[in-house]
Amino acid sequence: MTSDATPGGPLDDPDYRAGVVELLGLLCFGELSAVEELNQDAQDAPDLATKVQIQTMAAAEWGHFEQLRDRLVALGEDPFAVMESFGATFGRFHGRTEPSDWLEGLLKAYVGDGLAADFYREIAAFLDAETRQIVLETMSETGHSEFVVDQVREAIEADPRVAGRLALWGRRLMGEALSQAQMVVAERDALTALVVGAVDRPGGFDLATIGRMFTRITEAHAERMARLGLDA
Amino acid sequence: MTSDATPGGPLDDPDYRAGVVELLGLLCFGELSAVEELNQDAQDAPDLATKVQIQTMAAAEWGHFEQLRDRLVALGEDPFAVMESFGATFGRFHGRTEPSDWLEGLLKAYVGDGLAADFYREIAAFLDAETRQIVLETMSETGHSEFVVDQVREAIEADPRVAGRLALWGRRLMGEALSQAQMVVAERDALTALVVGAVDRPGGFDLATIGRMFTRITEAHAERMARLGLDA
Repeated sequence: MTSDATPGGPLDDPDYRAGVVELLGLLCFGELSAVEELNQDAQDAPDLATKVQIQTMAAAEWGHFEQLRDRLVALGEDPFAVMESFGATFGRFHGRTEPSDWLEGLLKAYVGDGLAADFYREIAAFLDAETRQIVLETMSETGHSEFVVDQVREAIEADPRVAGRLALWGRRLMGEALSQAQMVVAERDALTALVVGAVDRPGGFDLATIGRMFTRITEAHAERMARLGLDA
Repeated sequence: MTSDATPGGPLDDPDYRAGVVELLGLLCFGELSAVEELNQDAQDAPDLATKVQIQTMAAAEWGHFEQLRDRLVALGEDPFAVMESFGATFGRFHGRTEPSDWLEGLLKAYVGDGLAADFYREIAAFLDAETRQIVLETMSETGHSEFVVDQVREAIEADPRVAGRLALWGRRLMGEALSQAQMVVAERDALTALVVGAVDRPGGFDLATIGRMFTRITEAHAERMARLGLDA
């Protein structure tokens, strides 16, 4: 099996490689961050069965984290140094989206997981085969979202006022996610060039393409909210 | 492969089976509880690399939890119902041994993991082959204790007064663990009969045997503390 990391592969281009390393660091931190949020949710779970369900979701995200970290190590990078640089981004996002209860925590996990998966799937199109495969594998549906859908729907059935509050919460999550994504784009030249600035690279985005991408991501978010019985 | 759970196997004895189910429930809750404590420790970790190291320990304990839970399911039990009944025991233990900082959390994980492994290894001798194999597998060293040893030794080197405080903490952990173990013995007839009350079963414990077992467990605890540079 030939590797894209071997001499002559796409990772020989230092700009491309820097972008891939930043992307993997971003994903890696995102997974670790998802694990920590789910651990917190598990602590607040109303019963043992639910707690175990949430920890099962956390274990799936942890497996993804390990794959991404191992890829960074295979590329000769210190995964923690690369991740560290995204601490502020995730700190801001989580600081502004602290769930006030169990349901808000669940919704955050569901919305965040969905948005991340959509976004990274879009980006995957611009990656070398090996990196793309890892990104797609780690972003694959963990198959646990039905659990969240059931919990939220039950809560709304028990108290219909919950729907309005959670719909607002979903909009806030989406707004903060987009706002942090914009800051990453503004701060991260190598990562941004991977998809946006690659004018001289076939397949690079133009502004219209970016616009369509965000439309697709927003629509997918609205569909996910609708599955919960919530307005986006 | 023949199964001990098939007709004619040791699990056909309803008293023995009840004891095994209680034991698995106890172990299961213990593993879940360890995962939650480690998640908490990871949150307090001083840096990303340490956080990831702690989450790796939690992931290993989670794997053990899944094996034990699956065994309960294979025995036709509702794992959550069985676990639930041990909630008060673990709640008391953790309520009385709330770590006041990162090092106390680490030491608790190390001491707790070691004590549990010693205790369950002793009990394993009285189990049918299948149950014994699962207990021994899930209680095997997760191989992460070197990490704790290094962290504690470094902390003591940086500030020798830490050693006195942590030695006291280790004694408190041991005392509370023994006290909760005694309550389990007092409350759990089926579990206790598995090892103690089985006068009519070959291999059952007498009081002298129990005494020797506790001596072995206490000695192993002292050795673990000594590896940290702490008095037991």
